[in-house]
Amino acid sequence: MNRRIVILTEGYSNPRTAKTAANLIRYRPQEVVAVLDATQAGKRSGELLQVGDVPVIASLDDAPDSDTLLIGIAPPGGRIPDPWRRIILDAIGRGKQIVSGLHEFLSDDPEFAEAAELHGVRLHDVRKNHLRSIAKCEGLDESTLRVLTVGHDCSVGKMLTALELTHGCQQRSIDAKFLATGQTGIMIDGDGIPIDCVVADFVNGAIESLVLRHQRHDVLLIEGQGSLAHPAYSAVTAGLLHGAAPQAMIFVYEAGRTATTSVEHRPIPPIRDIVNCFETMARLRHPSRMIGFAVNTRLLDSEAAREECRRIEQEFGLPACDVVRDGPGRLVDAIESALTDQRRLHPRARAH
Amino acid sequence: MNRRIVILTEGYSNPRTAKTAANLIRYRPQEVVAVLDATQAGKRSGELLQVGDVPVIASLDDAPDSDTLLIGIAPPGGRIPDPWRRIILDAIGRGKQIVSGLHEFLSDDPEFAEAAELHGVRLHDVRKNHLRSIAKCEGLDESTLRVLTVGHDCSVGKMLTALELTHGCQQRSIDAKFLATGQTGIMIDGDGIPIDCVVADFVNGAIESLVLRHQRHDVLLIEGQGSLAHPAYSAVTAGLLHGAAPQAMIFVYEAGRTATTSVEHRPIPPIRDIVNCFETMARLRHPSRMIGFAVNTRLLDSEAAREECRRIEQEFGLPACDVVRDGPGRLVDAIESALTDQRRLHPRARAH
Repeated sequence: MNRRIVILTEGYSNPRTAKTAANLIRYRPQEVVAVLDATQAGKRSGELLQVGDVPVIASLDDAPDSDTLLIGIAPPGGRIPDPWRRIILDAIGRGKQIVSGLHEFLSDDPEFAEAAELHGVRLHDVRKNHLRSIAKCEGLDESTLRVLTVGHDCSVGKMLTALELTHGCQQRSIDAKFLATGQTGIMIDGDGIPIDCVVADFVNGAIESLVLRHQRHDVLLIEGQGSLAHPAYSAVTAGLLHGAAPQAMIFVYEAGRTATTSVEHRPIPPIRDIVNCFETMARLRHPSRMIGFAVNTRLLDSEAAREECRRIEQEFGLPACDVVRDGPGRLVDAIESALTDQRRLHPRARAH
Repeated sequence: MNRRIVILTEGYSNPRTAKTAANLIRYRPQEVVAVLDATQAGKRSGELLQVGDVPVIASLDDAPDSDTLLIGIAPPGGRIPDPWRRIILDAIGRGKQIVSGLHEFLSDDPEFAEAAELHGVRLHDVRKNHLRSIAKCEGLDESTLRVLTVGHDCSVGKMLTALELTHGCQQRSIDAKFLATGQTGIMIDGDGIPIDCVVADFVNGAIESLVLRHQRHDVLLIEGQGSLAHPAYSAVTAGLLHGAAPQAMIFVYEAGRTATTSVEHRPIPPIRDIVNCFETMARLRHPSRMIGFAVNTRLLDSEAAREECRRIEQEFGLPACDVVRDGPGRLVDAIESALTDQRRLHPRARAH
């Protein structure tokens, strides 16, 4: 059952702030009918968000067939921009479902909740959860390869990489499953855990339970969050790393990025230090190794991009590619090889 | 204003499970009038909880002057044991304030909330919070020495060590302040952040804001939580480490403990690996080093305790002591020395 989604990005239609919007257009093109931003009406999504070719509209009047309004930005702190309240109330008044990944829940807002009840509309707060399980370190099937995408910063392509690797595996008939751990991934996949909104004591347990639910697949591509090197979000990243207990990690970074997202005065530490920290930290829970690099080369021309991939391959002795520019082939090779190694040590015992 | 507290430990009066009770008796002896556990009535706290000499009573009838019932256990998952509901409702009916550090909030329970309103009683859920600040990495005063207690497991003495070191510093007229990060620490100190109950995205920011509020002191002794080596709680520990950005850490461990708390089938990794991981992880946020070991030697006789401290001192070239058995002197020396080093690099600029 396809939704007909209008994505709200009013006043924030750039690829970085509106990354939820951009990723929905990329991975759910059949469901997105328009982007709503009166300040940019008449343009197309390709121009503003560098993805797809969806019309940008000024009002819901311009998308009469839509049935869903989806909040398309994930601002730091997760609060609803004030000018959006009128737009959301208008959508509720028109009977459209509302999907939001913000930390500030629409369903906890008395005005939205009352309007939604009046108009029989569902407010779907993707991040809202009451997860309360403690990690038990029991029941992991070592014949399943758990691959976590990690990185040097936020908003660098960890979700995109996990999705592209999942598709790349599936094209080779490997039974791979993407596991979403953030609001956008959940909106795309329809399942997952909004890990950054879980109460701290239960972060590791929430991810462990997600992994346990999906072990029938041969390969799990687990969406990473934040970075151990990000001074604001490392709690999320550490819990995800230990809860997922990956045997293998793919390191995602943007070539040329030097400042830490949302704490711009802080330079990002050297990649070698971050890789070392991920492997050191992972080992306390489960032996794990980096098996390749997904290089986000959007700041580079194609020659410089190739050179950067060569450079990082040589430095670490691991395969590297830009999964968008080059396709994920080299990293899918690395996953296949890691799966073979894993199955040698832990043969698949039984049908799940 | 002193409270007159009865601590509820019904059916769980052992030092490990009732560690909140034991620590309140240790650090707030003037406020605790009794322990409530009908299954152990007539005994004294020293016998059951290895601390103080408070009577164990069978009913609130036996403590008519009390004004507060405090939940004295912190079970994994934080749920209220079923048989306790009747006792808590009885206390509310008698007009006593209720203090709870559980994850399951009393004030969210319709039966408790209704009874509290009827009797004009306050339900104080110590862990309840709406903390929503993102770590900014701004405003830290490097002339303040931030010392974080870390460890190899949960329930090993990180809070006790931070409190004893605070008192030890104060006895030498060093302006030191204990910063509570858990429910028991907050109950003892009256201030702090229930870090394990903060939504994951805001863990680092919550601790950063706590530190910023208290920088007028010369030394901050920050209560550690969990361990980077604990597979269930490492999210909490990592966020605390980066939010606090300590220049110095004290490593707390229990000699002889080999199994991880609440995941007993998992051996605790070697101390050297855990120390290395703390220093590696800390460095991504702020240079930090271990400056000493607080050895919990309760499983050892006094000769074996001395030998264990000698052994760890030799292995790491750092001072070690049992802060209960030996007093915290050797570690206070290490803190004084770290403060001197810190002030050499960052002189105290102005009166706060």
